[in-house]
Amino acid sequence: MKADKALVYLDDVAEGDRYISREYPLAVAQIKAFARDFDPQVFHLDETAAANTFFGGLAASGWHTAAITMRLMVESVPFASGLIGAGVEISWPRPTRPGDVLHVDSTIIAITPSKSKPDRGIVSLQSLTLDQEGQEVQKLISRLLLFRRTND
Amino acid sequence: MKADKALVYLDDVAEGDRYISREYPLAVAQIKAFARDFDPQVFHLDETAAANTFFGGLAASGWHTAAITMRLMVESVPFASGLIGAGVEISWPRPTRPGDVLHVDSTIIAITPSKSKPDRGIVSLQSLTLDQEGQEVQKLISRLLLFRRTND
Repeated sequence: MKADKALVYLDDVAEGDRYISREYPLAVAQIKAFARDFDPQVFHLDETAAANTFFGGLAASGWHTAAITMRLMVESVPFASGLIGAGVEISWPRPTRPGDVLHVDSTIIAITPSKSKPDRGIVSLQSLTLDQEGQEVQKLISRLLLFRRTND
Repeated sequence: MKADKALVYLDDVAEGDRYISREYPLAVAQIKAFARDFDPQVFHLDETAAANTFFGGLAASGWHTAAITMRLMVESVPFASGLIGAGVEISWPRPTRPGDVLHVDSTIIAITPSKSKPDRGIVSLQSLTLDQEGQEVQKLISRLLLFRRTND
């Protein structure tokens, strides 16, 4: 899955390290399918009804934007032990719309070695999800568990 | 969708108001299907490979737990203007496992009327996602936009 990319351990990362994902086009059918399963509200399901809501038109569920962001992070952030989240903060400054083409721009903003478990640490990663015009549709701060390189 | 439930506006809610969802059983096939789309890491996709990871066995993606939580909140939190999230904080104290039966217990922890827009406010809702043994698999704090009752 990440064979073409050098996997990194806690020993290898530094504040400011940056990872850019591929682009992900979001079709209206995907927006409605996700909403039917997980967020069945009119502004995610029906163009006509959505026009009269706060969103002024069909918008993707914020949880759909978050899930797509994770997909793009799994592909672009080469942490050797995978992306294991302890916790996150998310904001959605503007809605994701049908036809948007998203990508994710991730930057390491802090690294905190564990005091009790010397083999690991927490990497704080800021991931901005941007549309085709560079507008921010989601800001995610993740606290991710990352292990040190072992010698065996 | 919520015809059997009295819808509430900003005027109607109070700190401490509590909403309990139905139960949601999570099958292994759903865990793998979500992971294939949005979080394709071995610990969410393959029992055998997952056994040798941090999770010690197959676990649902935290984003899947979050999406199910939203589904259960849409069904149980009767906000008249819908659930419109400005931002959230999430932590995952333990993994969600195949066969778990989840429910969501939501409590209003703060209400902040908007200073600039008197027709609305932000409701902070704490939603605990619990398994069949009452163990917490996710803690979510949402800041949700809620409108006042109008007179027209």
